[in-house]
Amino acid sequence: MADAARDVETTLGEVLPRPHGLHGRVHEAMRYATFAGGKRLRPFLVLHGARLFGVPEIRARRVAAAIEAVHTYSLVHDDLPCMDDDDLRRGRPTTHKAFDEATAVLAGDALLTLAFEILSHPDTHESGEVRCRLIARLAEAAGSNGMIGGQMIDMQAPSNAFNPDDVIHLQRLKTGALFEYACEAGAILAEVGPKAQERLRHYARDLGLAFQIADDLLDVTGTTEQLGKTAGKDVEQGKATLVSVYGVDGARAEATKLAASAAALLEDFGEKASLLRELPYFMVERDS
Amino acid sequence: MADAARDVETTLGEVLPRPHGLHGRVHEAMRYATFAGGKRLRPFLVLHGARLFGVPEIRARRVAAAIEAVHTYSLVHDDLPCMDDDDLRRGRPTTHKAFDEATAVLAGDALLTLAFEILSHPDTHESGEVRCRLIARLAEAAGSNGMIGGQMIDMQAPSNAFNPDDVIHLQRLKTGALFEYACEAGAILAEVGPKAQERLRHYARDLGLAFQIADDLLDVTGTTEQLGKTAGKDVEQGKATLVSVYGVDGARAEATKLAASAAALLEDFGEKASLLRELPYFMVERDS
Repeated sequence: MADAARDVETTLGEVLPRPHGLHGRVHEAMRYATFAGGKRLRPFLVLHGARLFGVPEIRARRVAAAIEAVHTYSLVHDDLPCMDDDDLRRGRPTTHKAFDEATAVLAGDALLTLAFEILSHPDTHESGEVRCRLIARLAEAAGSNGMIGGQMIDMQAPSNAFNPDDVIHLQRLKTGALFEYACEAGAILAEVGPKAQERLRHYARDLGLAFQIADDLLDVTGTTEQLGKTAGKDVEQGKATLVSVYGVDGARAEATKLAASAAALLEDFGEKASLLRELPYFMVERDS
Repeated sequence: MADAARDVETTLGEVLPRPHGLHGRVHEAMRYATFAGGKRLRPFLVLHGARLFGVPEIRARRVAAAIEAVHTYSLVHDDLPCMDDDDLRRGRPTTHKAFDEATAVLAGDALLTLAFEILSHPDTHESGEVRCRLIARLAEAAGSNGMIGGQMIDMQAPSNAFNPDDVIHLQRLKTGALFEYACEAGAILAEVGPKAQERLRHYARDLGLAFQIADDLLDVTGTTEQLGKTAGKDVEQGKATLVSVYGVDGARAEATKLAASAAALLEDFGEKASLLRELPYFMVERDS
């Protein structure tokens, strides 16, 4: 994962504007939010998904950078006082704490906009049709019926207003939609048709839910130091988490089951998919 | 202008998601922010710019809808308490007042995302290359070196920290960049090459500055009832306006000069451009 992180960070360093002019502050905030460590999990998924189909590395890196820009914008906006009100992210002050709220809103807006600019550029793929397919799918995954919709549900009510299916639906939108896109992007770049794309999306759905359960478990069992963000916030805010649905032991069992299901979906891809098959287990067992 | 407004509102009604599901609140806020009256000036520019080159109406309407979605998102975010802190917009409560801040942030994000989704769709143009050109230019015009950059400058300092060139630069980014894109979009759709595109952009630069001066003048001379938004806020907040640069009389003279210059740029287009030639004068003389 460190290799994928280094590769996508190189590309992000190139595509993010260098601070300049009277408006340089927004560029600084975009870079501050982007270069904050982080696992770069979505880029890892893009790069390894693309390798299954022999997609040139340079193209996959650009799509990975676009998705990481979208993920970063979502964290910047979600951390705002009017949303989850978080002061810490990966052990550092969140963007609105390091700068100010207005700058954080604008930096998030700019990162989202940049993602589409990256995808529209001919370096991402020589075919305009393929680039538009990437853009349409990103907009769908990140939009009001995807990631934003998930955050909207999350903001609305404490967990007791939701039944278990609602919580799974919430997580599938909030985290799952961008995971699905990250996993299928390689298939779109390679123009291999809907069957492989659907297989990768199915893998992403199981992986995303396993990842979210692990995240919710860490919020309950981890410490603030370990996580680099405030622990216990979900419970405190009455958030609709998968742990509140399954309980701690049930959640662990469900995550392991989902990891096995995700791994099994990539059997056909053989050796090339070995890292993607290991990933779900790694996700479930991580402690930060 | 009422015709253009009606046409683009029909398209917006079709492309905006209908409220549904647990996340329907964000759809409602997107619609509330979008269907709030408004002059639909940018759509007017797109539709009439496209007519100069005989672009099919359906395509121009989709681009107009995308630009209006971006314009609407920028108003929703600019009105937030951490930005311009406005309670009124076009005589109605702003989106964060009618809903709440979190919903307003998310609805803005979703409108921005939707704009790129609209442009990426084959109905906008049959060529993926042309759609990607539209997307790249929108991202540039709306991004950190365009509209967002302008808002960043605007948020940073009271007017006395800026020289006149800085204020013009600010307005060219904040309002001008999206105006330029609206005016040149027809030329991109028609694939007529860079010369006509540059002519339209030049027109848009003069028009945008004239429009902004008129807006700044109205903030000084208009009433809250007349404007449908809080009058006198620029002065109160020490904003860097063009009236603070030129004075009231100087600003009127500059706006009239810019209107004449904009109109002259479209002489070659003959009768088809008559409304676009009248528009700058109308902008300068409007009282709301």
